Parts: sequence; structure tokens; C-alpha cells
Amino acid sequence: MRRVRFRDPAGATRTGEWTDAIECDGRSYDPAAVEVLPPCEPTKVVCVGRNYVAHADERGADVPDRPLLFLKPPNAVASHGATVTLPTGVAGNRIEHEVELGAVVGERCRDVDPAEATGVLAGYTVMNDLSNRDDQRRETNWVRGKAFDGAAPIGPVLATPEEVPDDATVECRVDGEIRQRASREQMVFSVPELVSEVSRFLTLEPGDVIATGTPKGVGPVEDGDRLELTVEGVGTLQHTVRA
Amino acid sequence: MRRVRFRDPAGATRTGEWTDAIECDGRSYDPAAVEVLPPCEPTKVVCVGRNYVAHADERGADVPDRPLLFLKPPNAVASHGATVTLPTGVAGNRIEHEVELGAVVGERCRDVDPAEATGVLAGYTVMNDLSNRDDQRRETNWVRGKAFDGAAPIGPVLATPEEVPDDATVECRVDGEIRQRASREQMVFSVPELVSEVSRFLTLEPGDVIATGTPKGVGPVEDGDRLELTVEGVGTLQHTVRA
Repeated sequence: MRRVRFRDPAGATRTGEWTDAIECDGRSYDPAAVEVLPPCEPTKVVCVGRNYVAHADERGADVPDRPLLFLKPPNAVASHGATVTLPTGVAGNRIEHEVELGAVVGERCRDVDPAEATGVLAGYTVMNDLSNRDDQRRETNWVRGKAFDGAAPIGPVLATPEEVPDDATVECRVDGEIRQRASREQMVFSVPELVSEVSRFLTLEPGDVIATGTPKGVGPVEDGDRLELTVEGVGTLQHTVRA
Repeated sequence: MRRVRFRDPAGATRTGEWTDAIECDGRSYDPAAVEVLPPCEPTKVVCVGRNYVAHADERGADVPDRPLLFLKPPNAVASHGATVTLPTGVAGNRIEHEVELGAVVGERCRDVDPAEATGVLAGYTVMNDLSNRDDQRRETNWVRGKAFDGAAPIGPVLATPEEVPDDATVECRVDGEIRQRASREQMVFSVPELVSEVSRFLTLEPGDVIATGTPKGVGPVEDGDRLELTVEGVGTLQHTVRA
């Protein structure tokens, strides 16, 4: 099932199932006629860096021996269909796209065993880990680089785990051109390993997102670009950017 | 005014004024007889590193040319009177105390001019930026080191700005012994400068905390230690730790 949160034409917030149309309480809504909301409301987004070998290579960095973690706070969340205003960096304005599979937490949990980890997930979504490289490379912690308003578009739906194959394709297009494309099988640390490692020292809350790293092919986005970020089984998160 | 959130003996969450007793809705409560709650509910804690020259020196690090920022998510918040369970690091378990003045945001804001910054604050609190050094020094971003459950005890009250002098003393005692003591005048970047810089790229929400950095004298805490963290005008945040 692919669950979507949306505001209906009357302004009410609803949750429905996105098939061809959006089905909710016996009614059908045209997806183009509603405002799609983020599929969950994270108290935090825990992100994983360099979790695909080919991406670590393109960044000129080693693959870490344990997950490289960083955080995005709730202000970073943006929705399907959003126009994200890009921040101004210190040395220009190089903002890059990073498509990622987002694992969405379904229940409060701590110290989760890898073998139990899929059981605490509500499902999966797509996230764009928008990154301000100019700031990021000057920072001890990636806050200006990764936590700015709109730095985490997520959506369009929360897909239950069985919808997303183990070898799901993760893909990013900019203005229709494929920039990133890989299989989630190429991750260094798997989703269960990530859930387990993160929950070893912090409590995960319902709606929290673990963003599982991006494949190679990251590149700049510019004023007016139209991004389409796809995870097989979840669907396509679309948003634009403006400088 | 020093505002306190607490759970009364009947279990209701209330907000009162902490003078000698806690005054709320015409009743007086004995502070020792209620459960003091965190004075605010941050969606994020934005922390500042190396914001006192003498602390940067003791860490063997330069004073940054702009605020060094990092994040603590809501799971890190702990209250006055809490017993914080220390996490297990990768190479032992060196957890250190860092007393800080916490500036608490009062209204949603973005792109705040330094001259307007005190106007967006609800007031001040005390925070202990508990830090797991073993993990912190192995991390690209300080997540295991700084974002673990209980890593941000805050309280005991939210003091309105006029309560806290410009040269307020910031102090930490462990088992009665003074470990850190300085004046907030010694900060490298002032509170208005920090509010302005952070709000340049992210939206601050009511209840968010900007933790303004720690003076020199940081040191380890161990099982059973009793911490008293004081900011003049706010009062003393007390908590214990267990391994």
C-alpha cells in the first residue's frame, strides 16, 4: 500500500491510498487537484553519508567503517510538489541533489536488533538530501550545508515494506535527464543495520526518517530545475528549486 | 520572571512561576513535590562549539571565524532532576559535562537582524551539552557524540531576558566542586549574532534552543555524579548520571 497525506480541496488534512487516483473514505481525489503533504512528520531525519561505494569514490572519500551519520531537523522537510528556495552559500551557491531511499519509523524504539529492524518500520519514502557544498566543505558539522529550510524534500507516499523490492532502483532525474541510478542492493550498510546502529544510542520516534545514502552521480541544481526522484515501489517525488 | 513547566501531584502538566515556591493559578507548590519538566519543547537544539576562547584552547582547537554549529534532536532533551543513562562509546566511555547558556526562541522566525534578535527570544535556560568524546573524535559529524538520549538536560526554568545580566556567571559543579566558571561576556559570538547567523538559513520555532557554547573546564562525569549547572538569573539545573 502507498499511503499519502494530503490537504483536500476544502482544506482538510487526510490520509489516503495512492493508486491511480487517491482513495480516501470512499471518495476518489485527483492527485493533481490536492496538495500532497510530507508522508510523515519526523522529529529528526538521521542521514547516512557515503553508503554507496561509487558515491564515496566520486567524493574522493573512503567508505566509512561504520555508518557516517548526520542530522536534518524538521525545518528541512519539504513536500512533493514544493518549490525549494536554495540558500546562499559562503562561496557561491553550489547546491547538489542526492536521491535516497528513506526508511520511515513506525513505532518508538531503542536498541533494535538488526533481525527485528524491519518490524519497527512503517515503510519507505523517497528523500532528496539537498546539500550546500560550499558550506559543507567548510564546516566541522554539516549544518549550514545540510539542515537549511527545504533541504529534505520527502514523499510522495509512504510505501509499506512489501512494495519495495530488495533490489529497488533509486534514481534522480533533473529536467528529464537521468543523473543518478543504482540499486539499493549496492548500499554498504543495509536498512536493518542502519536502524540497529542508530537506535543503539537514540530513541527513534514514529515518523522519523533514516535516509540511507545516495548513489553516485550527484550534481548541481539551478534555478528552475525540475527534479524527479524515484524509488521503485514508492514512486516519484517531484519538486522544483529556485535561487 | 522564571517560568517553570511541571507535572503536579495529580499528574496534570502546568506552567507556573518559580519564586521560593512554584506559584500557579493561585496555588503554591513545593518544588520538591512536583516533577519539573523541560521548560520548553524544542524541535531542534542548535549548538555552538568553541564559543569561549579558553575552552577552544583547552580542546587544542582554533576559535572558528564563524559559529561552529551542530545539532541535538528532541530525543536528547532531559529535565531538571533527571538521571541520565550514559551511552557506551566505542573506545571506553568518556562522557564530559559542558554547561551552557541556552537561548530559547519565542516566535517562529527567519533572517533575524542582530539588532532585532533579543525580540524573538522567550528567554534563557541552562543546558548541559553532554558529550561522548570517544565517539565525537571519530565522527565526521557529532551524532553519536552529541545526539544520544539525554545528551541535553535543560532547565530548571525559562527566565525572561531581563533576569539574566549581560555578565551572567555560567558555572558547573560536579558533586559540589566547581569545574567550570566564566562570564557570558567571554563568548566569542554574542546571542544576537548567533540568532542572526542560525536564522539566516533555517527557520527557528517557538521552544527551539540555541546553546551558546561552554567555558573552559570541561571534564568527565561518572556513574553517580551529581551535576549542578548554574546560569546567574536562571538558577541551577540539577541532574545525575548513571553508567
